[in-house]
Amino acid sequence: MSKLKNAVVGQSGGPTTVINASLAGVISEYLSKENCGTIYGAVNGIKGVLRGDLLELNSTFSTKDNIELLMQTPSSFLGSCRYRLKTDTDDEIKKIVSFFCEKDIGYFFYIGGNDSMDTVMRMSSICAEHDIKVIGIPKTIDNDLIGTDHCPGYGSCAKYIATVVSEMAQDAGCYDIKNVLIVEIMGRNAGWLTASSALARDEKISAPDLIYLPERAFDEEKFLFDIRQKLLNQDTVIVAVSEGIKFADGTYVAEDSQENKKDMFGHGQLGGAGKKLEMLVKMRLGIKVRSVELNIPQRCASHNASLTDVTEAFRCGCEAVDAALSGESGKMITMLRANEPEYNISYDALDISKIANGEKIVPDSYINEAGNDVTDEFVKYASPLIMGERNIIYKNGIPAHIIR
Amino acid sequence: MSKLKNAVVGQSGGPTTVINASLAGVISEYLSKENCGTIYGAVNGIKGVLRGDLLELNSTFSTKDNIELLMQTPSSFLGSCRYRLKTDTDDEIKKIVSFFCEKDIGYFFYIGGNDSMDTVMRMSSICAEHDIKVIGIPKTIDNDLIGTDHCPGYGSCAKYIATVVSEMAQDAGCYDIKNVLIVEIMGRNAGWLTASSALARDEKISAPDLIYLPERAFDEEKFLFDIRQKLLNQDTVIVAVSEGIKFADGTYVAEDSQENKKDMFGHGQLGGAGKKLEMLVKMRLGIKVRSVELNIPQRCASHNASLTDVTEAFRCGCEAVDAALSGESGKMITMLRANEPEYNISYDALDISKIANGEKIVPDSYINEAGNDVTDEFVKYASPLIMGERNIIYKNGIPAHIIR
Repeated sequence: MSKLKNAVVGQSGGPTTVINASLAGVISEYLSKENCGTIYGAVNGIKGVLRGDLLELNSTFSTKDNIELLMQTPSSFLGSCRYRLKTDTDDEIKKIVSFFCEKDIGYFFYIGGNDSMDTVMRMSSICAEHDIKVIGIPKTIDNDLIGTDHCPGYGSCAKYIATVVSEMAQDAGCYDIKNVLIVEIMGRNAGWLTASSALARDEKISAPDLIYLPERAFDEEKFLFDIRQKLLNQDTVIVAVSEGIKFADGTYVAEDSQENKKDMFGHGQLGGAGKKLEMLVKMRLGIKVRSVELNIPQRCASHNASLTDVTEAFRCGCEAVDAALSGESGKMITMLRANEPEYNISYDALDISKIANGEKIVPDSYINEAGNDVTDEFVKYASPLIMGERNIIYKNGIPAHIIR
Repeated sequence: MSKLKNAVVGQSGGPTTVINASLAGVISEYLSKENCGTIYGAVNGIKGVLRGDLLELNSTFSTKDNIELLMQTPSSFLGSCRYRLKTDTDDEIKKIVSFFCEKDIGYFFYIGGNDSMDTVMRMSSICAEHDIKVIGIPKTIDNDLIGTDHCPGYGSCAKYIATVVSEMAQDAGCYDIKNVLIVEIMGRNAGWLTASSALARDEKISAPDLIYLPERAFDEEKFLFDIRQKLLNQDTVIVAVSEGIKFADGTYVAEDSQENKKDMFGHGQLGGAGKKLEMLVKMRLGIKVRSVELNIPQRCASHNASLTDVTEAFRCGCEAVDAALSGESGKMITMLRANEPEYNISYDALDISKIANGEKIVPDSYINEAGNDVTDEFVKYASPLIMGERNIIYKNGIPAHIIR
C-alpha cells in the first residue's frame, strides 16, 4: 500500500461551537488510514497557507484525549480568517498550489461558510491540474448554506438560545408586575437562529411569546399592538428579535438608531435592534422593559453544545476525507434528512458551484401568517438538531479547552 | 410525638440560579420530619403573605422527582418581590402575624438578600410574642451579605461568568488581528462577580487580561494605557468590567454616557459601562473593539450551575428548618469556611441584626496594587465555589424546569 499524499486542513469565517469538531473529524479520519502521511493545519485559514504557516497535527492528535478536548473547544483551534482570494488574477492560487506541490499535499479541506466555499470553488479548478483534491466542509451558525438540510454549528447555537430563553423566562416572570423582555439574536439576513428560540416552549412555558425574523418587514405599530395584546392575558411578554430585522423601506431597525447616534458621537453602533425596541416599548407603552443581546456567547457556548450537532460536525469532517481519498474534488459535504418519523441524516458531496455564494433564508412555510411567530413545521424541522448533550471534561470548575 | 406547627417559606429579591435549591432544602427538611404539618409557599414573597396568597407544597414535593426538578430550575419557583414592610407602623407585620396564627404557622423561612433580611429582622421581634420562629436564608449573586463566608447564588453565577469568558477568549482570538473585547458583568457596588472572571484563566489562557472593580476609582487614561501595554505583547485583550465602575468623582461610567443620551432621546439607559468603554477604545485607540454585557443569563444559567453552590444552597435551607425547630429565631443561616488546605463549610445561625442592611465589598487584599486585576488570594477564595456540575435532566433538548 503506497503512502497517501499529505493533507492540509483550514478553518475560515466566524467561529462556531463545533467548527473544531469538524476539524477533529478530518484529523481522525485521515490519521485512521494505515498509509496516512502528514496532516497540516493552516494557521488562520487560507491566509496561513499563503504565508506558508502550517502546523503539523499528527503528533498532537495521536491521542484520543486531545481529540476529545478539541471536540469541546469552541472557535477555531487553527485560527480563522475572513480572507477572499483575489479575483482579478489567479496569482494567489498559483502560489498556493506551488506551495502544496512542494509539501507533497494531495488533499485540502476547508471548513467554513459562504465565503469559504467561494475559496474552495476557486481553488479546486486549478488544483485539479495537479491532482490535489479540494473538499469544503459546511460550518455556520446562520444555517444559511444551500444544498444541505442544515449546517453544523446551527444546532448548538440553537440549543443555547432555547436554553437561555427558557431560563430568562423564569427570571423575567418572578415578580407580579407587567414587563417585557426583548431578546436580540444573531442572524443578519436569515432568521434561523431567532426562530430557534421557539424551542424554549413547553406546555407551561409560552416564551418567546413573539418572534420577529428578518424575512418579514418589521412594523413598529404592529409590534406594539402585538405586545399589548399579549399583555392582556399575561404579566410577562418575552420577544425574540433578529439583529437583522428591517423596516419595509429596507433600513435596519438597528441602523435607524445608529444614525441618531452618529450625529452625536461621530461614530455608530451604540445599540442594536433589541435596544432600539426597548426604547420604543418604554416610550410608547410605559411599562418595565429590558433588552438582552445574546451576543458572542451564543456562538461559542460549547459547555451547552448539542450532541447531535457535534456528532454531525465530526462526521462531516470524516466524510470530507473519505470523499477526497475516493477522488472527489470541488465539492462540499452536505447532509440529507431521511423521511419522517425518524430523524436520520445521510451524507453526500455536492458540486461546490451549486453552493458557493448562495444563501438560504427561512421559507414561508416556517413563518406564521401574522409574521410574528414560527410554525409547527419549523419546530418539527429544528427540534432534532438540539438533542443530546456531551459529557464535558471540566478543569478547575470550567470546561477544558485545547489551545494551539 | 405531637404534630409540628405549619410552616411558610418565601423567596424575595432578584433571582439567582440556586434560590430554588434553598427552597428545596426547606421543603425536604420540613417534610422529612415524621410529625410535620403543612408547608406553604408564599407567592411573591412577603407581598403574597400580606394578601394571603399561600400555596400548599406538601403534595407537589412529596416525590423526589419534583425536588430534583426544583433544584435545577432558576429564578423563584414561588415568585419574588422587592417589597419592604412599611417602617412607619407595625400594622403590616401585625396583619401577617394574625394571619399566621389563623393558619397555625409556627415557622417562617425567608430566602433573600440584604433587603429581605431587613424583613426577617422586623418580623422576628413581633413574631416572638406568638412563638413563631423566623429564619433568614442567604441568597444573592452579588455575594455582599456580611457574616457569611460567601452567599448561595454567587458560585453558580461565577461559574457561568468564568465559563463564558473562557469561551469568548477562544472566539475573540480566532483572527490574527489586534482587537479588544470588553465584558460587562453584574455588581453595582461590590465587584465579586467581575472578580470571578479571573477563574477563566489557565496556563494557556490569560483572559481576562484586565479586571476593573467598583471598589477602585476608574480612570480613563489609565485604562487606555493598560490596554496599550497589553497590546504590545498580544493580539487580543479581554477586559472584565463591573457595571458599577465609577470615576473618582463618584459618577458611574455608565451614567456619564446615559446623560448624553438623555439629551437626545429624552430617556436614558441606552448602554452600560461596557458600551461606554467600547466607544472610548474605538475613538482613542482606533482598533477593533466589541463589548458584551453578560446580562440576565449570568444569574439564571442553571444549565451550568456549580454543584458546590447548589448543594450549599440546599443545605442552607435544611439548616434553617433545623434551627427553627430547635427554637432559634431572628437569625440568618451563615457559612463558615474551615482552615486550609481542604475546602470545608460548616453552618451556623447568626443574629439577623448583625447582618441586615450591611454590605460586604471586595477587600483590599483581593485587588492588585494597580487596581486592574485581582490577587491570587482572591482566586484561592473563589475557586472552590465553582467546582462540580449537576447531572441536568433535559427534556426536548433543553433543561427541564418545574413551573408553579
